[in-house]
Amino acid sequence: MSRRAEPASEATGPTIVAGEILVEIMATQPGLGFLEPLALVGPFPSGAPAIFIDQVARLGGGAGIIACVGRDDFGTINLERLRRDGVDVSAVSVSDRYPTGSAFVRYRPDGGRDFVYNIAESAAGRIGLTAEARRLADGAGHLHVMGSTLSVAGLKEIVAYAAKAVRARGGSTSFDPNVRKELIEGADGAQFAALVDDADLLLPSGDELLAAAGVDDEDQAVKALIARGVGEIVLKRGAAGSTRFAADGTRIDSPGFVVEEIDPTGAGDCFGATYLTCRRRGMEPARALLYANAAGALNVTRRGPMEGLAGFDVLDGFMAGTDRTK
Amino acid sequence: MSRRAEPASEATGPTIVAGEILVEIMATQPGLGFLEPLALVGPFPSGAPAIFIDQVARLGGGAGIIACVGRDDFGTINLERLRRDGVDVSAVSVSDRYPTGSAFVRYRPDGGRDFVYNIAESAAGRIGLTAEARRLADGAGHLHVMGSTLSVAGLKEIVAYAAKAVRARGGSTSFDPNVRKELIEGADGAQFAALVDDADLLLPSGDELLAAAGVDDEDQAVKALIARGVGEIVLKRGAAGSTRFAADGTRIDSPGFVVEEIDPTGAGDCFGATYLTCRRRGMEPARALLYANAAGALNVTRRGPMEGLAGFDVLDGFMAGTDRTK
Repeated sequence: MSRRAEPASEATGPTIVAGEILVEIMATQPGLGFLEPLALVGPFPSGAPAIFIDQVARLGGGAGIIACVGRDDFGTINLERLRRDGVDVSAVSVSDRYPTGSAFVRYRPDGGRDFVYNIAESAAGRIGLTAEARRLADGAGHLHVMGSTLSVAGLKEIVAYAAKAVRARGGSTSFDPNVRKELIEGADGAQFAALVDDADLLLPSGDELLAAAGVDDEDQAVKALIARGVGEIVLKRGAAGSTRFAADGTRIDSPGFVVEEIDPTGAGDCFGATYLTCRRRGMEPARALLYANAAGALNVTRRGPMEGLAGFDVLDGFMAGTDRTK
Repeated sequence: MSRRAEPASEATGPTIVAGEILVEIMATQPGLGFLEPLALVGPFPSGAPAIFIDQVARLGGGAGIIACVGRDDFGTINLERLRRDGVDVSAVSVSDRYPTGSAFVRYRPDGGRDFVYNIAESAAGRIGLTAEARRLADGAGHLHVMGSTLSVAGLKEIVAYAAKAVRARGGSTSFDPNVRKELIEGADGAQFAALVDDADLLLPSGDELLAAAGVDDEDQAVKALIARGVGEIVLKRGAAGSTRFAADGTRIDSPGFVVEEIDPTGAGDCFGATYLTCRRRGMEPARALLYANAAGALNVTRRGPMEGLAGFDVLDGFMAGTDRTK
């Protein structure tokens, strides 16, 4: 059980993540699935952990990732982007045998999405606790865990090792509980509960808050999670903005920015990375929420999950020129 | 050693192939590789064995394929196309675990091509000698083997079983020796040599003829291969047409058709399928070459490896309205 009121400062060491690096290929026109030749655009660097950690680096935070890509152009485009933006990729292994993971996405007319994935059987599914991964974890100050990646073989061992290493240095952890419901209720329920209990910062969106707490009401869910030891909860509300619930019972609502949505993929990861990095820098929660809302909003205005990532200078300019909701 | 002067007639049973079913994703503009987001188009049904067998069916020939796809839209688009065109897909297994194979292709300014493949570790690499594969092979009249697919695990066993089954029915075999040179010279050289020796019809293109014979001169290569028992050799010369060399020493040169090339992928497979199917129908070699040249030429005028496949009615119209080379 954690009783930390805020994530460990930047001085403790870089923020690290582990999980899938992918390319994303997008259909340019909405519709149902991929059952005929379509106009597409890609490859875009992608993968939730990669989006998250790239945004940490864009904000000037120390950043590293444990991952695996194939020895192909799709691996290269990701590694080049991460390196350019300042992410430590020393713990990214390159597979000669497996191709870089990929996700084809097409928006439906109703706003839903159809996917064709190659993740579990791609290089992304070959992540392991290598010597380089241990070395990165041993020097880290914060571990961010994404629920969506826990189903990949090898991830549990990495998360267990890294969480312990980070704690041993006085570091902190955050958890995005974007997990399929079957996973929470299944054999992996115990690990999920432990990750929630251990989180200094929980970053759910929508119903994930209720699922994480196992109750049907937002206020009750927050109380239950704080009682379990969560340090702070930041609820992502998409275009409507975000709300921060603290262990001391305070609540901050932060309205979103009004933008034209082009591509929402990656906005939640970009939001979370920005909030975390601002807090690790010592920023007050209200200001961190504001930057996080701005980063998420700016991200949806660009096609490609990592194309709208931005540093503080760009975010300051965006905030100065953009209306907020309500 | 085979001494057959022509492939077994259609009455012996359908033509079958085994190997990869893929989707192809193409860059719309030439350039080098996939190191930035590009305009793409796809998924197109693809995979050399699939292209070949679909063209057999388009010409009204009995046709079946032994393959494996993933349970995703990319598998569905291929299965729907093959079924629509009349191919027996009863021996295509569907993997819950592995995604359908894929190939990204981009043409270089110099006419070369860059690829990013996911084949060996995709569903295409999970092909096996299933009960359905045995059943299909047991009723087949002709087996076509593609050298490019022999590196896939499981293919050798299927080819060995199917070749024996087809021979037992009085059927015939053809072989497209599009094999990487390392394979011919490596541990698999014996199987390659056996496939050449056993072929009633050999369908090389360019240097593959010389590589198959192990000599540096076209005439010598033809003589050597005929001496080894090959029934007939049809050399694919791309835009320049084709040449047929028979065991009796005769030679037929057939000029190509003059077309604007949009996408050459699949043209060789389309050519081979057409020549074989015409011959199995009892057509004279010269006329079979003519149809095969027409089918290959028509295929390169359409983007997508299977989008330019055509039946006899369309080929007759195309031949009537198109000039020939020389």
